Amino acid sequence: MATLGLIEYTDASAEVRAVYDDIMATRNTDYINNFWKAIAHDPATLRRTWESIKQVMAAGSLDPLTKELVYLAVSASNQCGYCIASHTAAARKAGMTDGMFTELMAVVGMANETNRLVSGYQVEIDERFGAPAKIKTIGSADAADNSTKSNY
Amino acid sequence: MATLGLIEYTDASAEVRAVYDDIMATRNTDYINNFWKAIAHDPATLRRTWESIKQVMAAGSLDPLTKELVYLAVSASNQCGYCIASHTAAARKAGMTDGMFTELMAVVGMANETNRLVSGYQVEIDERFGAPAKIKTIGSADAADNSTKSNY
Amino acid sequence: MATLGLIEYTDASAEVRAVYDDIMATRNTDYINNFWKAIAHDPATLRRTWESIKQVMAAGSLDPLTKELVYLAVSASNQCGYCIASHTAAARKAGMTDGMFTELMAVVGMANETNRLVSGYQVEIDERFGAPAKIKTIGSADAADNSTKSNY
Amino acid sequence: MATLGLIEYTDASAEVRAVYDDIMATRNTDYINNFWKAIAHDPATLRRTWESIKQVMAAGSLDPLTKELVYLAVSASNQCGYCIASHTAAARKAGMTDGMFTELMAVVGMANETNRLVSGYQVEIDERFGAPAKIKTIGSADAADNSTKSNY
Amino acid sequence: MATLGLIEYTDASAEVRAVYDDIMATRNTDYINNFWKAIAHDPATLRRTWESIKQVMAAGSLDPLTKELVYLAVSASNQCGYCIASHTAAARKAGMTDGMFTELMAVVGMANETNRLVSGYQVEIDERFGAPAKIKTIGSADAADNSTKSNY
Amino acid sequence: MATLGLIEYTDASAEVRAVYDDIMATRNTDYINNFWKAIAHDPATLRRTWESIKQVMAAGSLDPLTKELVYLAVSASNQCGYCIASHTAAARKAGMTDGMFTELMAVVGMANETNRLVSGYQVEIDERFGAPAKIKTIGSADAADNSTKSNY
Repeated sequence: MATLGLIEYTDASAEVRAVYDDIMATRNTDYINNFWKAIAHDPATLRRTWESIKQVMAAGSLDPLTKELVYLAVSASNQCGYCIASHTAAARKAGMTDGMFTELMAVVGMANETNRLVSGYQVEIDERFGAPAKIKTIGSADAADNSTKSNY
Repeated sequence: MATLGLIEYTDASAEVRAVYDDIMATRNTDYINNFWKAIAHDPATLRRTWESIKQVMAAGSLDPLTKELVYLAVSASNQCGYCIASHTAAARKAGMTDGMFTELMAVVGMANETNRLVSGYQVEIDERFGAPAKIKTIGSADAADNSTKSNY
Repeated sequence: MATLGLIEYTDASAEVRAVYDDIMATRNTDYINNFWKAIAHDPATLRRTWESIKQVMAAGSLDPLTKELVYLAVSASNQCGYCIASHTAAARKAGMTDGMFTELMAVVGMANETNRLVSGYQVEIDERFGAPAKIKTIGSADAADNSTKSNY
Repeated sequence: MATLGLIEYTDASAEVRAVYDDIMATRNTDYINNFWKAIAHDPATLRRTWESIKQVMAAGSLDPLTKELVYLAVSASNQCGYCIASHTAAARKAGMTDGMFTELMAVVGMANETNRLVSGYQVEIDERFGAPAKIKTIGSADAADNSTKSNY
Repeated sequence: MATLGLIEYTDASAEVRAVYDDIMATRNTDYINNFWKAIAHDPATLRRTWESIKQVMAAGSLDPLTKELVYLAVSASNQCGYCIASHTAAARKAGMTDGMFTELMAVVGMANETNRLVSGYQVEIDERFGAPAKIKTIGSADAADNSTKSNY
Repeated sequence: MATLGLIEYTDASAEVRAVYDDIMATRNTDYINNFWKAIAHDPATLRRTWESIKQVMAAGSLDPLTKELVYLAVSASNQCGYCIASHTAAARKAGMTDGMFTELMAVVGMANETNRLVSGYQVEIDERFGAPAKIKTIGSADAADNSTKSNY
C-alpha cells in the first residue's frame, strides 16, 4: 500500500543494503521496518534519515529510553498511527513498562489540553519566562485594563 | 492581553485563592503563572486543570524531570509559545540541563520529520507492530503489486 | 508587517472596494479587518474567501452564534493568534458571554486531550460507530489476544 | 488492536467498574465505548478523564448539543478518526441533524482555510482586537512602509 | 463508511449532477472521487468547494503540477490519509515522477523538523525578515542578556 | 529571547564557524539567520540540520524555487511565524513573485479546508487510489448501507 511499495533486502541495491545492514547491526536485529523499506526508493533520504536517527537517538545527556518515550509522545500528539505503533514497540524494547506508557499518555493528553487553553485565553508570557521588558510594561497597563474588560 | 484579563491573588475569590494556595504550596513558590490567573475566570476549569496537572505530573513510573521533558517536547511540537517558555522554565527547575534541552529538541525535530515521511509515503503498519492478520494478507498481495506500481 | 502590506479602502481598486463595501454592508460596520486588507493583494482570493465566509456563516440549521463559537473553537485548537483575537471579538458581537467562552475553551481543551489519548492508546473504532464488519471480526480476535498482551 | 487491549466489565476491577457504572448511569445506556475500555488500564486516568468530561460536557452556559458540536468540530479539525466516529454518534444522540452536521463541517473547513491564510500572509492583529498600543504605533509605521513593500 | 454515505450520479439531484458534470468535463474523466460524493449531501458546500478548487488549481503564476505538489505536501504534512492518496494520484496525472515525489517528501519532512526546532528554541525573527524596529531594540538588549543566559 | 541565546560568529567555536562558513559560501551571503545562531549551542544538530537542508534543497528533480515554495507552504500550514518570515524571504530570493505567493497561499488554504472536510465526513479512500481489495468489498456493502443511512 506504500506509495512506491516496499524494497526488500533481496531486491535492494548495494547502497540500500549498506543502510539496511547498518540498521540491523546497530539495532541488533534481523528485521527492517516497513518505514525504511518504503523510503528506500530514495537512497539519499534513506541514508540521511537513518544517520540522523542514529545520531539523535544515541545515549547522551538523555538515555535511550527517555528519547524513545519522547519520540512516542510526539507521535501520539501528532496522531501518526504508524509511528505510534512502531515507537510503542521501540519504547517497550528500550524498557518502557505499561505503567510508564500510561503515565506518558497522561502527560501528552494534559499538554495538548493546556496548550489550547493557553492559546484560547490568549495568555501573555510571564515576564520571568522571557517576555521582553517593553511588553511587560504594556502587560501591566493591560492588567488594569483587563480587570475592566472582564466585566463586559 | 489575556482574553478575560488576569486575576491577581488580592482580587481572587476564596475558591480561586484556595487553588492558588495549593499551587504555591505544592510547587514551593510564591509565584502564580499567568496561565492560572487567566483561567481563574472559570473556577471550575481552574480547579479541574490544577488537580489534573498535580496528579499527572507527580512522580510515578516516570520521574518528574522526564514528565517535564515530555511536556516541553509536546509543547514545542505543537508550537505553543507560552507553553514552551513556561515549561522550559519548569523543566530547568526540575533539572533539565542545556545538554538535555538540545537533545530533547533534536528528538522532537526528528519525530516530526519522520511522522510526515511515514504519512507521505503511506507506509502500512508492520504486522509485528499490530497490523491485523487480515490486513497483512492484503499487504502481502500489495507488496507484489507495489513492485509493479513503483515502475509507473 | 503583513507580507504584502495592507490595502486601505482609499488605495483599493474598484474590484477590491466592491468586496469591502459588501463586507461592511453585510456586517453593518464601517470597519474592515486587517485580514481582508492583507489578502486584498489577490482580489480573486479576497472575493472567493468573502463569498464563502458569507455563505458558510449565514444562519441555517445552525444559528450565527453557534457558528462563531465553532470558528473560535477551531482557531483556538489550531493556535492561530490572529484568528483567536478576531473571532473572540466576532463571537462576542454575536452574543457570546464570558460564561460561554470559558465553557467553550473547556470543551476545546478536553477534545484535544482525549483526541491524543485515543491515538496514543491506538483505540479501534467501536463496531457501532461505523467500524466495518470485517474489522470487527478481527477486533474480536484481538480482544482475546490483547488481554494477554496487556500482561507483558 | 488497542495498545494494552480493552478491559471488559466482567474483567474489570471494582475501581474501574465504579467508573463504568457511572458512565452508563449518566449516559442512560448499557454500553461502554472502546475509549474507556482502553484507558481503563490506568484507573487514575480513567477516573480523571471521565470526571472531567462529565463536568465539561454538562449543560451550563452552553447546551449539551452545542458542546457536542464543538467536540466534533475540534476532532474533525484534528483529524482523529476514532473521535470523529464516536462524537458524530454522540452529537446525533444529542440532536444533531444532517443539516447541522454539514453546516458544522463547512465552518470547520473555512476556519482551517482562513487560519492558514492569516498565518501565511503574516497578518498583524488589529488594534481593536487587542494588539497592544506599542505594537500599534509600530503597526502604523509599517502600514506606510507596507504600501511600498507591496510594490516589490 | 462516509458519515452520510456517498451519492452516486444516478441518485443525484439535478443540482448535484451539474457539479459532477462540470468536474468530469474539467478533468476530462468519467470518474467522480468519493470526496465529492460524500459532500454532495450538502449541495452548497459541494458547489462552493468545487468552484473554489477549480479557481485555485487553474494555471496562473504557478503551473498545475506545482500546485498539485503543494497540495500533496500540505496533505502529507497534515497526515490526511485520503488526501495523500487522492492527491498523489492527481499529482502523478499532472506529471509528478517518482523522483519528484521523493524530493517533495524530503522537503516536507525537513520543513516539519525545522519548524519545531525554531519553536522549541524560541528563535526570534531576524530584523531583516520583518521583525519590527521596536522589537529589534529589545532583541539587541536580549542578545547581550542571552550570552549570559546561555551559561546557566 | 531564544532559549539559549544566539551565538555570533565572533563568539563561535571552530566547529560552529565551519558550518557558518559553509552556509555563507553556499548561499553566497555574509548573513547567518538567527535560526542557525540559536541551534549552534548544539553543534551536532547545527551540522546535521545544515547538511540535511543543503542536500534536500539542492536542485534535483525539483528546482530550488519549487522547493522553497513547498517549504513556505508547509510552514504556513503549520503556522510557524519565524519559518514563514524567513522562508518568504528565501522564496523571494529564489524567484517567487507576489503572484506566485498569493496563488501558493490559496492552495495552502484550500488543502487545509478539504483535508478537514475529508476527515469530518469520514470519506473512505477510493479503490483506484489504493484502498485494498478487501476493504473495497466492505466498502461496496457499505455503499448500499449508506444510501439507507443517509436517510436518517
